[in-house]
Amino acid sequence: MATRPTDMVNTMQDAAVTCGPIPGSHKRYLGGVRFPELRIPLREIRQSDSRKRDGSLEVNPAIPVYDCSGPYTDPDVVIDIHAGLPAMRWQWSPTDTAIESRPEPGSAYGRARLADVRTADLRFHHRREIRRAANGGNVSQMHYARRGIITPEMEFVAIRENQGLEHLRASHPALFRAHRGESFGAQIPDTITPEFVRDEIARGRAIIPANINHPELEPMIIGRNFLVKINANIGNSAVTSSIAEEVEKMVWSIRWGADTVMDLSTGRHIHETREWIIRNSPVPIGTVPIYQALEKVDGKAEDLTWDLFRDTLIEQAEQGVDYFTIHAGVLLRYIPLTANRLTGIVSRGGSIMAKWCLAHHQESFLYTHFEEICEIMKAYDVSFSLGDGLRPGSLADANDEAQFAELHTLGELTRIAWKHDVQVMIEGPGHVPMQLIKANMEEELQHCFEAPFYTLGPLTTDIAPGYDHITSAIGAAQIGWYGTAMLCYVTPKEHLGLPDKNDVREGAITYKIAAHAADLAKGHPGAQVRDNALSKARFEFRWEDQFHLGLDPEKAREYHDETLPQEGAKAAHFCSMCGPHFCSMKISQDLQEYAQSKGEDIETARLEGLQEKAEDFKRLGKNIYLR
Amino acid sequence: MATRPTDMVNTMQDAAVTCGPIPGSHKRYLGGVRFPELRIPLREIRQSDSRKRDGSLEVNPAIPVYDCSGPYTDPDVVIDIHAGLPAMRWQWSPTDTAIESRPEPGSAYGRARLADVRTADLRFHHRREIRRAANGGNVSQMHYARRGIITPEMEFVAIRENQGLEHLRASHPALFRAHRGESFGAQIPDTITPEFVRDEIARGRAIIPANINHPELEPMIIGRNFLVKINANIGNSAVTSSIAEEVEKMVWSIRWGADTVMDLSTGRHIHETREWIIRNSPVPIGTVPIYQALEKVDGKAEDLTWDLFRDTLIEQAEQGVDYFTIHAGVLLRYIPLTANRLTGIVSRGGSIMAKWCLAHHQESFLYTHFEEICEIMKAYDVSFSLGDGLRPGSLADANDEAQFAELHTLGELTRIAWKHDVQVMIEGPGHVPMQLIKANMEEELQHCFEAPFYTLGPLTTDIAPGYDHITSAIGAAQIGWYGTAMLCYVTPKEHLGLPDKNDVREGAITYKIAAHAADLAKGHPGAQVRDNALSKARFEFRWEDQFHLGLDPEKAREYHDETLPQEGAKAAHFCSMCGPHFCSMKISQDLQEYAQSKGEDIETARLEGLQEKAEDFKRLGKNIYLR
Repeated sequence: MATRPTDMVNTMQDAAVTCGPIPGSHKRYLGGVRFPELRIPLREIRQSDSRKRDGSLEVNPAIPVYDCSGPYTDPDVVIDIHAGLPAMRWQWSPTDTAIESRPEPGSAYGRARLADVRTADLRFHHRREIRRAANGGNVSQMHYARRGIITPEMEFVAIRENQGLEHLRASHPALFRAHRGESFGAQIPDTITPEFVRDEIARGRAIIPANINHPELEPMIIGRNFLVKINANIGNSAVTSSIAEEVEKMVWSIRWGADTVMDLSTGRHIHETREWIIRNSPVPIGTVPIYQALEKVDGKAEDLTWDLFRDTLIEQAEQGVDYFTIHAGVLLRYIPLTANRLTGIVSRGGSIMAKWCLAHHQESFLYTHFEEICEIMKAYDVSFSLGDGLRPGSLADANDEAQFAELHTLGELTRIAWKHDVQVMIEGPGHVPMQLIKANMEEELQHCFEAPFYTLGPLTTDIAPGYDHITSAIGAAQIGWYGTAMLCYVTPKEHLGLPDKNDVREGAITYKIAAHAADLAKGHPGAQVRDNALSKARFEFRWEDQFHLGLDPEKAREYHDETLPQEGAKAAHFCSMCGPHFCSMKISQDLQEYAQSKGEDIETARLEGLQEKAEDFKRLGKNIYLR
Repeated sequence: MATRPTDMVNTMQDAAVTCGPIPGSHKRYLGGVRFPELRIPLREIRQSDSRKRDGSLEVNPAIPVYDCSGPYTDPDVVIDIHAGLPAMRWQWSPTDTAIESRPEPGSAYGRARLADVRTADLRFHHRREIRRAANGGNVSQMHYARRGIITPEMEFVAIRENQGLEHLRASHPALFRAHRGESFGAQIPDTITPEFVRDEIARGRAIIPANINHPELEPMIIGRNFLVKINANIGNSAVTSSIAEEVEKMVWSIRWGADTVMDLSTGRHIHETREWIIRNSPVPIGTVPIYQALEKVDGKAEDLTWDLFRDTLIEQAEQGVDYFTIHAGVLLRYIPLTANRLTGIVSRGGSIMAKWCLAHHQESFLYTHFEEICEIMKAYDVSFSLGDGLRPGSLADANDEAQFAELHTLGELTRIAWKHDVQVMIEGPGHVPMQLIKANMEEELQHCFEAPFYTLGPLTTDIAPGYDHITSAIGAAQIGWYGTAMLCYVTPKEHLGLPDKNDVREGAITYKIAAHAADLAKGHPGAQVRDNALSKARFEFRWEDQFHLGLDPEKAREYHDETLPQEGAKAAHFCSMCGPHFCSMKISQDLQEYAQSKGEDIETARLEGLQEKAEDFKRLGKNIYLR
């Protein structure tokens, strides 16, 4: 590409990220109990009062919701992306393990890059010290959990998962009206405690991706007994995109609800782009280190070596990457299983490793050096995201021998990682028709011992390029229901191009829908609170509240404005769909108020009320519309 | 509204509808066997050849797909919406029943409207003769089916359902590679015969909505043993929209795949709008007659009478409406069951009837005069769509006593309609979390005796106004899989405003996805053909074919152009997501070609091929990317 480094610098000088509150929301922070220094973010959606027909007011409580948007939505925080976010975690009570600070990068590449004058202007200048476990120690959350230690991160995520709903449960029990879930074996307690978090992490059923070199992180947890999370992919390619755009895409995607972000950059300046992203990211950042390794050998997969890859892992671990996708399950003997597939190998990482394996006729260094990788992971607490290099790229290839053979190998690798107390999640498909989705979850639970499943979609049909956020949300909601812990979003550009900001927003909201639909179906305690609040607002024609309680207040308002732009319409007791004559909700309100005004319970109303109601009705002019 | 009739006339004079082929598609017609005069439409997506590495070409067959876009996508047809579509069905062999032609409308309203000079300029001027069964006879498809008669409509839909795939099954068996479905009791034969259609209609498990006064119709079938269909709602309201816009919305929605269209107009000139729509519609048109009846009494529900409603049914039946939503299941005793709901009654029709019932303290005339309604339906062959007036409007209200009580009553009404040989489908919810969806289908199958289920969504969460096409597509795909025969689309504007053309397109494509995902999951024979063809095109970098085989070729191309606008990129063996270095599909192609070139089967390749492959690989320069 023709972009000169100086262009990039200019881009960073002009760089702006989207800041400011989400409409109708206010940022709040909760403190810890064990660790009072914690500031756990929440977003509170304030509601207006309900006006009853007798003129009295009913106060509607603020609805707290999980918030992964970081300081960018806090109007009290001054954002400077050149300085990065504060190193919050480093101010927390230290956990009892020796950590050493390194004077210079531990990777040859990191050192070379630092010495390279050509990239000096591109660099993020507020470099942090580099930390790692001293003396071959282990700083992983799993390691602490297994030793019975509750870390600040564990209390942080416990409080965060409860979403500040506890006090509402007592004060507004009606908001907690919910259907019984079908959890397929997940067991989500009413209240998440730090002890529960510790236990889930110790047994490998959940992970907190939290590299000790990512002190800007607001920790979050991924596991089937917690809220379903979503990941957004960003990253430039050889073809397009600048560093500034990628930083903004990260900020933009967390604004719309991304719980983690993967930087899949494959173009120039991968190292520098990543530094900018991590220093400004309050959410875990994942990468696929083989992408950068391949750039280092000019795209020649067969020239990849363990030493080069190892150096790349250290380079990225020291920058603060929280989880690595490692395609260590692509074994030599599985590759021919893909030969008769309709769409072969569609994972970039999987195809790179397949190419290497064929060229060398050996198992990949990812597999043969897996224990050494674990040693690196535990020194920084990088989590594994064991990649599904042989995932199906079309319905025809779903659930085939290649896919499940690799999944079983990922299970074996999980055991090895756990032996090292390294956190693991497992990546999943892909393209899968609905009737085959459940088998994917069952295979994963059985063969990977309930390690968190992290799936891409799955897409439930191949025939809708341009709409694959939807083909895949259908599958994502289902697999999330069955037990997947994190859903990797798919944008409308999937298969066609790189997502722009609109696509990122569309993909993120679509996946928040899928994740929330899954939480509801599992019977997550508290999941239905927001639905109930929004539906109450809708029924009471509190339009502003309805917008604010939604996943995308801006779009909801914009759509309402298109038909009824007048400000007065936001207070109207009807909407453009039916107009004032046809408003079913108005009639229903009258019915409810009638029952309430009589002080009757529903049974009495059923038995006695109707005749009287008919009389009232006629007496009051036979017209219950408000005009 | 301030619109004067003359404005409307001008609007109609300028009216234009979207015509022309869908990119890459060619219109074809199949003939009947019993009825050679039939011309059953198909859309054929032509593909380019695959170029193999040895330079030889593989011919890819044209893929025929179900086509509901009507003559508008046939470049050989001259469209004149002022003339309407040809009265095709009236030229088919008459079925053995006495039909009479009426000299003037049978409804008082129809006659008055015809005599009203103020609407003269608004009218559709090529009025058709009005037909009905003579001497109290029955012209319903169910009536013929039960007498063992196969009508032209039955052969038409049988051939249409097979989608012209029969010859491909022999010539290209690989295209039919598909997974075993899970049909939950649906039994879809490999080939649909007219006899099978007749049988399904006779037992009430499928309907062909086909009013004898809608001769422009290309018949289609709705039933769980056929392709899942989708409906698009259009219609003006008191607030917005003109006749010309509504005609274009109908044409536009069938272009994007709507199998039926409901005209839900509630504004002025309902009668004239409907006439324009039906005369130009090749798909069944449904209405909710109570909407127009309410307009006739100036919005005062309690002033509705059976006589007025009866006149409205005749008025609309004589215009050619193919199915009526009738909310006859809203019984007096069910209304108090909604009093403690979070969102009461959200169906317009349901709330109108509830208001009437309360005002009169009587069961509604829809219920008490149900058999007389059946007499009208059978004289024209209008199908019932028994309305779910008490469907839930929020998750909290899903599957409650009110909803299921009404559903059971719809079952009783189904039996009555069937006694009259009148076709019936049953409307369903609404807002339902995923874990409660299956119960809806099961209740319907059991209590409505497998009459086709026709559901709105269901929406699986309430928290995403602006994205309810997606919240509901998740539910629609599932309920379609479980057995729903037709899915009523939801657009992004649901709850917020009236859909514009973009919303109609977005809603229609989203629901085609849900319906197709359901067909695949049920194991519909042939459903996976298009997926397989598209995935093959994708794997072979036949970009144009990939676009054309998709549900929305225009959007797919537009998205591809955004990142790689050059025409050459449409022939590129990589795309913008990964760039040339990272293309997994290329590597996979090489693997497959290797296996094929050796003439080895997959087992041999697995056992012996790898060492040799590694050698080849090195010898060929270790680089298998095409540059």
